[in-house]
Amino acid sequence: MADIKIFAGGSGQAFARGMCSYLGVELRPAETIKFSEGNTYVKIGEHVRGEEVYLVQPIGGGAGAAANDDFVELLFWMDAFKRSGAKYVTAVIPYFSYGKGDKKDEPRVSIRARVVAESIELAGADRIIAMDLHAPQIQGFFKKPLDHLLARPLLARSIEAQCLEDLVIVSPDAGFAKSARKYASRLGLPVAIADKCRSCDDEKAEILDVIGEVRGRNAMIVDDFSISGGTLVALCRQLKARGAKRVYACLTHLPLSEAGIENIEGSDIEYVIATDSVPPRRPLDPGRFKIVSAAPLFAEVVRRMQERQAIGDLMESLPEGMLRDSRT
Amino acid sequence: MADIKIFAGGSGQAFARGMCSYLGVELRPAETIKFSEGNTYVKIGEHVRGEEVYLVQPIGGGAGAAANDDFVELLFWMDAFKRSGAKYVTAVIPYFSYGKGDKKDEPRVSIRARVVAESIELAGADRIIAMDLHAPQIQGFFKKPLDHLLARPLLARSIEAQCLEDLVIVSPDAGFAKSARKYASRLGLPVAIADKCRSCDDEKAEILDVIGEVRGRNAMIVDDFSISGGTLVALCRQLKARGAKRVYACLTHLPLSEAGIENIEGSDIEYVIATDSVPPRRPLDPGRFKIVSAAPLFAEVVRRMQERQAIGDLMESLPEGMLRDSRT
Amino acid sequence: MADIKIFAGGSGQAFARGMCSYLGVELRPAETIKFSEGNTYVKIGEHVRGEEVYLVQPIGGGAGAAANDDFVELLFWMDAFKRSGAKYVTAVIPYFSYGKGDKKDEPRVSIRARVVAESIELAGADRIIAMDLHAPQIQGFFKKPLDHLLARPLLARSIEAQCLEDLVIVSPDAGFAKSARKYASRLGLPVAIADKCRSCDDEKAEILDVIGEVRGRNAMIVDDFSISGGTLVALCRQLKARGAKRVYACLTHLPLSEAGIENIEGSDIEYVIATDSVPPRRPLDPGRFKIVSAAPLFAEVVRRMQERQAIGDLMESLPEGMLRDSRT
Amino acid sequence: MADIKIFAGGSGQAFARGMCSYLGVELRPAETIKFSEGNTYVKIGEHVRGEEVYLVQPIGGGAGAAANDDFVELLFWMDAFKRSGAKYVTAVIPYFSYGKGDKKDEPRVSIRARVVAESIELAGADRIIAMDLHAPQIQGFFKKPLDHLLARPLLARSIEAQCLEDLVIVSPDAGFAKSARKYASRLGLPVAIADKCRSCDDEKAEILDVIGEVRGRNAMIVDDFSISGGTLVALCRQLKARGAKRVYACLTHLPLSEAGIENIEGSDIEYVIATDSVPPRRPLDPGRFKIVSAAPLFAEVVRRMQERQAIGDLMESLPEGMLRDSRT
Amino acid sequence: MADIKIFAGGSGQAFARGMCSYLGVELRPAETIKFSEGNTYVKIGEHVRGEEVYLVQPIGGGAGAAANDDFVELLFWMDAFKRSGAKYVTAVIPYFSYGKGDKKDEPRVSIRARVVAESIELAGADRIIAMDLHAPQIQGFFKKPLDHLLARPLLARSIEAQCLEDLVIVSPDAGFAKSARKYASRLGLPVAIADKCRSCDDEKAEILDVIGEVRGRNAMIVDDFSISGGTLVALCRQLKARGAKRVYACLTHLPLSEAGIENIEGSDIEYVIATDSVPPRRPLDPGRFKIVSAAPLFAEVVRRMQERQAIGDLMESLPEGMLRDSRT
Amino acid sequence: MADIKIFAGGSGQAFARGMCSYLGVELRPAETIKFSEGNTYVKIGEHVRGEEVYLVQPIGGGAGAAANDDFVELLFWMDAFKRSGAKYVTAVIPYFSYGKGDKKDEPRVSIRARVVAESIELAGADRIIAMDLHAPQIQGFFKKPLDHLLARPLLARSIEAQCLEDLVIVSPDAGFAKSARKYASRLGLPVAIADKCRSCDDEKAEILDVIGEVRGRNAMIVDDFSISGGTLVALCRQLKARGAKRVYACLTHLPLSEAGIENIEGSDIEYVIATDSVPPRRPLDPGRFKIVSAAPLFAEVVRRMQERQAIGDLMESLPEGMLRDSRT
Repeated sequence: MADIKIFAGGSGQAFARGMCSYLGVELRPAETIKFSEGNTYVKIGEHVRGEEVYLVQPIGGGAGAAANDDFVELLFWMDAFKRSGAKYVTAVIPYFSYGKGDKKDEPRVSIRARVVAESIELAGADRIIAMDLHAPQIQGFFKKPLDHLLARPLLARSIEAQCLEDLVIVSPDAGFAKSARKYASRLGLPVAIADKCRSCDDEKAEILDVIGEVRGRNAMIVDDFSISGGTLVALCRQLKARGAKRVYACLTHLPLSEAGIENIEGSDIEYVIATDSVPPRRPLDPGRFKIVSAAPLFAEVVRRMQERQAIGDLMESLPEGMLRDSRT
Repeated sequence: MADIKIFAGGSGQAFARGMCSYLGVELRPAETIKFSEGNTYVKIGEHVRGEEVYLVQPIGGGAGAAANDDFVELLFWMDAFKRSGAKYVTAVIPYFSYGKGDKKDEPRVSIRARVVAESIELAGADRIIAMDLHAPQIQGFFKKPLDHLLARPLLARSIEAQCLEDLVIVSPDAGFAKSARKYASRLGLPVAIADKCRSCDDEKAEILDVIGEVRGRNAMIVDDFSISGGTLVALCRQLKARGAKRVYACLTHLPLSEAGIENIEGSDIEYVIATDSVPPRRPLDPGRFKIVSAAPLFAEVVRRMQERQAIGDLMESLPEGMLRDSRT
Repeated sequence: MADIKIFAGGSGQAFARGMCSYLGVELRPAETIKFSEGNTYVKIGEHVRGEEVYLVQPIGGGAGAAANDDFVELLFWMDAFKRSGAKYVTAVIPYFSYGKGDKKDEPRVSIRARVVAESIELAGADRIIAMDLHAPQIQGFFKKPLDHLLARPLLARSIEAQCLEDLVIVSPDAGFAKSARKYASRLGLPVAIADKCRSCDDEKAEILDVIGEVRGRNAMIVDDFSISGGTLVALCRQLKARGAKRVYACLTHLPLSEAGIENIEGSDIEYVIATDSVPPRRPLDPGRFKIVSAAPLFAEVVRRMQERQAIGDLMESLPEGMLRDSRT
Repeated sequence: MADIKIFAGGSGQAFARGMCSYLGVELRPAETIKFSEGNTYVKIGEHVRGEEVYLVQPIGGGAGAAANDDFVELLFWMDAFKRSGAKYVTAVIPYFSYGKGDKKDEPRVSIRARVVAESIELAGADRIIAMDLHAPQIQGFFKKPLDHLLARPLLARSIEAQCLEDLVIVSPDAGFAKSARKYASRLGLPVAIADKCRSCDDEKAEILDVIGEVRGRNAMIVDDFSISGGTLVALCRQLKARGAKRVYACLTHLPLSEAGIENIEGSDIEYVIATDSVPPRRPLDPGRFKIVSAAPLFAEVVRRMQERQAIGDLMESLPEGMLRDSRT
Repeated sequence: MADIKIFAGGSGQAFARGMCSYLGVELRPAETIKFSEGNTYVKIGEHVRGEEVYLVQPIGGGAGAAANDDFVELLFWMDAFKRSGAKYVTAVIPYFSYGKGDKKDEPRVSIRARVVAESIELAGADRIIAMDLHAPQIQGFFKKPLDHLLARPLLARSIEAQCLEDLVIVSPDAGFAKSARKYASRLGLPVAIADKCRSCDDEKAEILDVIGEVRGRNAMIVDDFSISGGTLVALCRQLKARGAKRVYACLTHLPLSEAGIENIEGSDIEYVIATDSVPPRRPLDPGRFKIVSAAPLFAEVVRRMQERQAIGDLMESLPEGMLRDSRT
Repeated sequence: MADIKIFAGGSGQAFARGMCSYLGVELRPAETIKFSEGNTYVKIGEHVRGEEVYLVQPIGGGAGAAANDDFVELLFWMDAFKRSGAKYVTAVIPYFSYGKGDKKDEPRVSIRARVVAESIELAGADRIIAMDLHAPQIQGFFKKPLDHLLARPLLARSIEAQCLEDLVIVSPDAGFAKSARKYASRLGLPVAIADKCRSCDDEKAEILDVIGEVRGRNAMIVDDFSISGGTLVALCRQLKARGAKRVYACLTHLPLSEAGIENIEGSDIEYVIATDSVPPRRPLDPGRFKIVSAAPLFAEVVRRMQERQAIGDLMESLPEGMLRDSRT
């Protein structure tokens, strides 16, 4: 497996290293410079002519909240690999923050996820690997094959590992109800559905109601991501008010703002389980944030791609080794 | 002329307002939001269906040194205007910092100016207006018509207005010699040529030599831009060592880093003349930095485009009114 | 307004005639032939060089259930208009059946809505007008401007006109809850949410639960479309079982199969309100199907496009005249 | 040869099975669903990442005369294969009914063959294999490589196998004269040329004249296809009137309409020889229609592609085994 | 009509001047330079921003037989007009020599007409005007609208004007029979059809036979073009041998090689009628070559385009004035 | 290495043969025909399905000064290889004369190098190999990978091999100073810089000045190419006037016009060293023109590409064998 060539963009260093570790390969050399004027510069550190390469770069949410830097750097990587004669370039994007810009929810705005998707393809990506995109339709914004990984098997196993009793899975809104139900079904647990109305441009949210029984139970809120922690904290309060015992949360992506981190730390949420798809803005309290690495999942997918094997079963259950490797 | 529709991106507010003032029109409403996660969001504030519109957005060098934010925001503007049914969208880019990435000066790097140019076109730009691009070949990275303005007539008139005596125009390297000679010829002054060797990835520079007589003369260094001020300050020292009296500089673009500002302020350079193509990172000492606005020049170009007139003569000499309006 | 040039494809004849009637213009001549071998042939009946034209063609659901014929015919129309030198071609697609193929809900399938969208653009469409697409993200499958009309103002006024008492708005699943709530809010009515699980490839559905009070009330189920009537009929049964008095349904699109028509006619649903976006497969019993025409809405949008006016307010409320004209 | 992966679209089942039988491989699993609303849905039944695949789908002429269904299904297959990561996708199109739409024979019509070709390529085809396209220029409507097979060697051998005496090859019009002459030359037979004037939009035809001697001879009419049988039957009558003894026909494609089948069955044509490129609308009387399979020819071409061998000689003569396998 | 802007490429000077004369406008300034190294350079001589422009450039056959120079120059014109901001650029190509490369008549060759067509579109052409393309399918090699003019009305009137008696129209091969029949029908004359077999790469031809009565008649051979005159001269000999009295020829395009001119001048052909679509290689004997100008036809088409009128009737009959203006 | 498949276009025969000789492979069969009408026709002489191929064709400067013929032929080769199913097609372009058209140095002209680059890519090139392009930015006109070879290591070794004493490297203008300095540094020699002003459209030049000491030294002028020899001859005169002893020149490309050859032969330049990137217009006097072959350099690059090795070190120093093979 020594010939799997994984490179990391500036924001993908840790995640890529996790992938390499699972695969037993070395991270390939690549250099990113940010000049004082603001320009980004990338340089591949070794010969790639005729190679299949993987470039790991989450977009958004990390230190500096630099979604745009991450995205533009990714464009330059794609171009650099193509101009260097790489045969097949896969953009590995564990977190894709512009997925939230997936529609015209107001007149005279851009469909940003399409713009970003198209630019990445124009710059040279032959394939994309992403996880839990904000809407499944975003795959259709890409023309190139996109492997859409699900964090659910990984996170569900992580919930199980907590050995919590009397648990009820809670969806924070009707839109996520279908996913919450899949979590519940996999774990053999009941489900409750809250419903909020979030206006898209100010990130505020208002809880309306909770459907399903939570009284006397421990609640595990599941969602795809949180920035300000607002929804989680308000829902936690609501659940407590309705008699829930302890409240936990389980998210795929954790692009928390500084205020978001404080918001959660100051709340009654026991802890948050999440993957490491977003490089953390600063070290997080491991008592409050239990991070499970998705790098082995991505690495296993890459391994199978390289060996022309199917990956569909990984959406259902994961090999034991992967779960062991996912502890961070 | 009330129907010229000028909009401003987040970094183009001041420049666009200068253009509107010259044209006697109001800046059209447009909103840019930068979310806490790092995502940029744009919204056009009025109906544009079937209209010809101008969106003003310099890329790079301003507060935050956010070239990538500027660029990505521009992509979203282009998409938003196109999806809103605008008939013809012109991207007005007074400063294009990625012009410096115009070639593969090392193996396995990206030609970043081409990536940026292509993405802007893909997102929807029908035409581009830019000024003093780092290399004239950059026009060829664009497929759409690009109007390439020259700051020279504006800056030469500004030099004249300083009424300096015994002036010699100094080019900081052989590559800029041709331009320096055009300045000198327009102003009826002698020229001297320094020659440096700049390595492209660390922004350091080393002065080698100065050709032409500077002893006993006042020296006006001309160049297209400066970030760190390094070349200017070193050349100033060199010129003084060779007997130059006072040393000035005249640049098209001023994307100075904080260190660059301090570097120049701490040097023997009397003052720097430059256009306002780059929004300043912080208020500059008007005694050390004499800013002449290029907004009237861009505005006049837009006016002529709208009226289907030629603009070629503006590369040679400027109407009186424009110069009056260019004082900032 | 005599210069608005509206043409109709084979499946858009009635709808286009409705639009022309609202606008007071004549439908332009255009001929569709279906050869015995299965090939479709189109011919524009008059000179269109340099003109802005509108071609009306719903895709899917009509007589013969010929979504593919409708789509391919649309491709040929786009090509014919472009090759004839039309300046700007708008595809008016009241119903877009392939909107349901908006994601990869299984491995190794096509994202059919993207394929259809891209082909339409490749064939020459400069703009698209559609209504209540299955997911708002579908706009992002198009690169060209797409005006996305909402049937809600029209249908809500139609519900009001029925003067039903004790009404509760019922969403057939969590995914439509947000829309149902908007109906309820506009009409000042309570809302209830059912939740079903539909597997995407066999059109079967299973009702799980109803949240919100329906006992003793008349229920108005709202949804975007129905083919087999299965969801509606099952939900109607469920609502009755829970004590609802009379049950009605209100849908944007009505691409009912023959079995679907019979299914509804044999059910306890009093009647179904819907627009005429889908040409009916056969004459429907006006007692059971109350059709309100969306042609005036589309026509008004076209009128404003032609006059470069905004259309956003039509998403909120409609001019009186339009409602009068919408009765079929 | 077990690694040649052949899949069949809904209309290509029989043909693909014939290819697999020649190659000794199994047809790969693939599922086509036509929903009651008219939408087509496709699903590949196995892993194809990194594979070279062949998808067999004739367009037009079969049961239901569903050229548009065949074409749209093909688009979805191409997209499904590409999105599933197939490395190289070849569309095998034994019959391409839209080849007849190869020019603007009237003003304001579409060049349908170009529209269809472009859409197939956009959807993802990397290569196309077709046979006896209506005009050789249609290859130029495709940008991707198209292997254009000729049925002539196959059909000529089939004519020989009939052991008919005193045969004259008859071209039904001047346009096919060149091909007819090649048949005659290969078989060492004389040629006669009829000339008709067919108006392109109503499929009617009128015989003008027959050049060359047919009196006392058996006539073998050769042509590329027939839908209504009109030309064949009228020409048969004409040939009889001029003293021909028995009349036969030999066509590449047989997209006969129901009326066409009856037309021929009711005529004096002894029998028609043709390939199986078009799936028959209903079982044909083997006494009147002698079908020779082109599947071995296509299969042999695929085999050679897979082994990077030339195929040009197959346009001249065929291996013995292939002819034996072509009997259906 | 002063605002019709016609420019001429290096090979289109005379033809463009003819168009301008018909329209009563002046030819716009444009400069072509051929450098000693072989590079071509073009420069538009006036402001074209926002204008609709027409660039006249036949490809091939003129002095120097410089099809490639003509074509490459055309590419540069398209690019120059687009980069100068012209709104709509029409390439007027009276003769398109690469039309002969319209198919793969051998393995492993290029479809040159498609390559040339695509490049012209990529370079910027918005529309093309051409005449009597070698095959009507060539329109389908272009994606942009192509107005395909027919020389037949012009040439038929020219034949009439010769007042020849006992005339029979002769097609030189079966492929041109359909066109010949249209000439005959328009002129009320009988038709005869020769048939030759031309191998595509060596321009040799061999006459096989003549069908139809020519004995005692004057023969007018009609064809689309001649390079070597070979077919014409051989057919003339054949016709004489079969008892024809005088033999004439009437061709759309006259890209005669030097040998071709001599060939015809040394033959029994009384004279050749042709349009001026190809600039003559050298002055031709007006007794042997009667040139009728197609410039008025092209000019009339341009006039109607500019005024958004239909042009279809010009394919049938021509205004009197145009015929008067077509005498050269 | 027998599987490296090198083909030659009409102008690349000698160069390609040199490459094959270095590699020990045979030149593959390929045929170019130029018809009397001016059309070019190309035909690949053997099966290339699934192969990586190299097509060698310098553009411009050779016999006939037929840059446009060379370029158009290259387009047809690309199309022919792609349509024949070649897997990866590399255009080997030792000399690219349109590199000089790399910017809009005047209003309303074309950026010809971009037009040519884009057309080559559209026609099918997957990769390009070129040498000493007129400006490094030209790489950015290509989207596909372009390997940009430098002649400097080869030419510097050739200068060394002349064993000239007291040598000074002379740059003919400021723009080439950087390159001249690299020559000097590699050879351990001093450098002098002349400066001229060349107007881009008439190829005339005027020498202004020489900086650096040349008196009493032998001067080696270095430049990238010469057409008329004008700059070289004038600079030679200037250097002699300033006391230089003997004057030599060393150029990458030698697209000399007939006048250029005579100009140099009649001058005081001892001899010119150059590569064979341009096929000579006629045999050159080997005493005045010392040609060193770049074919081994190109061949070595191809060899490494085929073996997926890096080529960067070849920009610095060359293997011994290559230099031996470069003697012509």
